[in-house]
Amino acid sequence: MRPLKELISLGEARGIWEAAAKPLRRTETVSTLQALHRILAQPLEAQLDVPGFARSAMDGYALRSSDSLPAEKNRPLRLRCVERIYTGQVPQRPIRPGECAEIATGAILPEGADAVIMVEQTEAEGDEVLIYQALVPRANVIQRGADIAMGTVVLQEGAFINPSRLGVLCALGVQQVTVYDRPRVAIIPTGGEVVRPGEELQRGQVYDINSYTLASIVLEAGGEPFIHPIVEDHQEKIIAAMESCQETDLFVFSGGSSVGTRDLILDICTRLGEVLFPGIAVKPGKPTLLSTWGEKLILGMPGNPTSCLSNAYMILMPVIRRLGRLPEVHRQVAHYPLSRRQPSTLGRHEFLTVRIANGEAMPVFKSSGDITSMSLADGYIEIAANVDLIEKGERVAVTFL
Amino acid sequence: MRPLKELISLGEARGIWEAAAKPLRRTETVSTLQALHRILAQPLEAQLDVPGFARSAMDGYALRSSDSLPAEKNRPLRLRCVERIYTGQVPQRPIRPGECAEIATGAILPEGADAVIMVEQTEAEGDEVLIYQALVPRANVIQRGADIAMGTVVLQEGAFINPSRLGVLCALGVQQVTVYDRPRVAIIPTGGEVVRPGEELQRGQVYDINSYTLASIVLEAGGEPFIHPIVEDHQEKIIAAMESCQETDLFVFSGGSSVGTRDLILDICTRLGEVLFPGIAVKPGKPTLLSTWGEKLILGMPGNPTSCLSNAYMILMPVIRRLGRLPEVHRQVAHYPLSRRQPSTLGRHEFLTVRIANGEAMPVFKSSGDITSMSLADGYIEIAANVDLIEKGERVAVTFL
Repeated sequence: MRPLKELISLGEARGIWEAAAKPLRRTETVSTLQALHRILAQPLEAQLDVPGFARSAMDGYALRSSDSLPAEKNRPLRLRCVERIYTGQVPQRPIRPGECAEIATGAILPEGADAVIMVEQTEAEGDEVLIYQALVPRANVIQRGADIAMGTVVLQEGAFINPSRLGVLCALGVQQVTVYDRPRVAIIPTGGEVVRPGEELQRGQVYDINSYTLASIVLEAGGEPFIHPIVEDHQEKIIAAMESCQETDLFVFSGGSSVGTRDLILDICTRLGEVLFPGIAVKPGKPTLLSTWGEKLILGMPGNPTSCLSNAYMILMPVIRRLGRLPEVHRQVAHYPLSRRQPSTLGRHEFLTVRIANGEAMPVFKSSGDITSMSLADGYIEIAANVDLIEKGERVAVTFL
Repeated sequence: MRPLKELISLGEARGIWEAAAKPLRRTETVSTLQALHRILAQPLEAQLDVPGFARSAMDGYALRSSDSLPAEKNRPLRLRCVERIYTGQVPQRPIRPGECAEIATGAILPEGADAVIMVEQTEAEGDEVLIYQALVPRANVIQRGADIAMGTVVLQEGAFINPSRLGVLCALGVQQVTVYDRPRVAIIPTGGEVVRPGEELQRGQVYDINSYTLASIVLEAGGEPFIHPIVEDHQEKIIAAMESCQETDLFVFSGGSSVGTRDLILDICTRLGEVLFPGIAVKPGKPTLLSTWGEKLILGMPGNPTSCLSNAYMILMPVIRRLGRLPEVHRQVAHYPLSRRQPSTLGRHEFLTVRIANGEAMPVFKSSGDITSMSLADGYIEIAANVDLIEKGERVAVTFL
C-alpha cells in the first residue's frame, strides 16, 4: 500500500477537470422528440416563414380596412359576406371593396383583405354583415413570418433543446436534427469480491453497488453509461477491458474495497497516460484520481459506496456535463438549522448527508462504507475545507438528492 | 363560438386538479437500473445482512484483541502470522491465541479474531509480526449487518428511487423491483390545419408544435407520452381516437388555433364525463379545461403554442407528478431586477417569459401564438392575479426553463 500524500483541494481539482474535460465534437442525428435535453450541433436557419401566410388572429370577418373607416358604433357599415373561410382552408376568391369573408382564427387571410373585425363587433343579417367599428390595416392579422421569418437563425449551435426550442424545430417542420453526442461512460467494476446483483453471493463477497450508483449519476448527467462485466484485479485484464470499450469518452473505476485496487488503477493510469491528480482533499472520498488516456479520461473513484457516490455528485457529474456541453444541473437547495454541533476535518471539503426532520438538518452519515449513509438522507451539506466546526442551530444549505 | 365566462383562479384550479388526479395504483416490475426516478410500490425488507460477514475496515492484521492488551509503543507484542486473507477470499483457519492473519480491507475476519490492527502500527519480521498498540474488541472491524441488518425495512412503499436508494437495492442483490407505473398520457392533435413535422405543408396549414412541446413536458414530468395521429375536428372521430387509446390515464388536447376546437372538446367532455373547470384566469391560456372520463382525466389546452406550453408547465406537469406519485419538480429560480415597467391584467395570473441580459430580466413575450415568445426566453416570471404593474428595476423571481 502506498500512502496517498499528494492531495489537492477540491477547487484545484475542479480547475484541472474543467481544463481536461474537453467538450465532445462528435454528433449524431436524431428525431425531433429525441432531441429533448440535447445540444444543437449546428445553427438552425429557418427554411420557411412561420406562419407561412397572413392569418386571422380572431374569429370574425376579413375585410379591407379602408372600407371600414366610416363605421361607427351608432352608424354601422354594411358589407356583403362572400365566403366562409375555415382554418386550414384556402380562400376561393379575393375580397373586393364592399365585401368581407367570415374567417376562423388561424385561417388564411383572403387576398384583398388586410384586417379582421372580431365577431363581437359585428352583426350578421342574411348575406350581409353590419360592421360597428373602424379598423386600421393589419388589425387582428398575424403577418406571414411574424413568429419566425425565413432565413433567421432561430437556434444557435450549442443551444440546449428545452421544450420550447423543440417547439421551434416542429414549427419549422424539422423532423431530424443534428445534436452533439452524449458522453459515453464505461464503468468497469473490478475485484473478485464484487458480484453483480441477482447472482449468488459466495462467502466473503458483496454485491456491486458502485457500478449502479455511478450509472445512475451518468444518466442524471445526460451521459450514456455502459457497465462492463466484473474484471479481476489484474493490470492486463483491466487494460484489455478498457480496450474492449472502443467508443468511450470516460472510464470510471471504483476502487473496490481494498487499497490494492486503487494502486492498481494508479499504475494503469501512469502506464497509459498522465495522472492529473491522484487524490482530492475531500471527506469522504480522498482516493479519487483523474487521468488521461489519449483523448479519453479515466476517473478512479473510491471504493466505499458513499464516498464513491458523493464524489460522483461533486466530480463525475460536472465532468460529464462538460464533455456533453450541457448546462449545470440545478438541484433544489434550501436552508435549515443544523440539529447538532458538527465538527469537521480542517483541510478537507466535507460532504455530509442529512435528513430533514422537525425543520432541522440532521446528520445521518454513519460510515463511508455504508450506502445507508446516503439512502436515508434527504440531501447533503458541504463544509468548506477551512471550517472545523458548525454549531448546533447554525443555518446550513441543504442540496437535495 | 361560446364565450368563456366561467373562469376560476389558478389556486382554485389547483385544488380541483389535486383532488381529481388520483395517484395511480398500477405497478410494473423493472430491472434495478430502470427503477431510477421511479416510485417503489412495496416496502423493501432486507433479505440479507450487508455486509454479510464481519470484515476488516483496514489493511492490517486480524488478531484476538485480548492478546494485544500488553502491547505498547516501546514494548511490542510478537504474534505469528498464520495466513494472508485477500478481499473476497474465505479464511482457511481460525486465529488461536498468539496468532494473527494479514488481512486486506473488506476481507472476511477469520474466526477467533475480533479486531484488526492497521499495518502502520505493526512491523513484519519473517513469519512474525510486531504489534505496537493494544486494541479493543471490534477495533477496525465492520460488523456483519452494520450497513443493513436482515429484516429491516430499508425503503418504504412510495420511496423515490434516487441514485443512493438504487444503491440500496444493489447492496441487497435485488435485480428487479416493483414500482408504480408511469402515467400514460395520450396527446391527440386535432384539426385539418395541423400537419406532422416532416410532412409537406399545404397552403393554409401549419406544423403541429403543441403535440411535441406537450410530449416534452410529459417526459420531463416522468410520464409516458403517446402522440396520436392527427384527427379531424369531428366529435365522433375524436371519441373514436380516445377509445383507441385504451391504456391511457390522461388525454391531452390542444385547442387547435380555432375557438371551434375548444367548443368541440368541451362538448365531448360534457358528453363523456364531468367538466371540472372550463377555463382558468391565467394569461396567456385562459381556455384550459379539465374533465373526467370515468377514472381517466381529460385536459384541454389552449391552441396557441406559448399558452399551451406555459399551461403545460403550470398545470400538466403537476397533474402528471401527482398521478405518478412523484415529488415536485424543482427548477432553478433566481432573482433579477425587471428591465422595464410591466403592466399586467388584474384578475389573471400571468406567465411572462423573460431573457436574462445585463443582469436584468427582460420580457421577451411577443404573442401567445408565437413559439419564439418562449424559445428565446431563459425563463419566466409569474405575476399574481392581484398585481397590475411591476415597476422597472423591481426584483422578480425567474424560473428557468
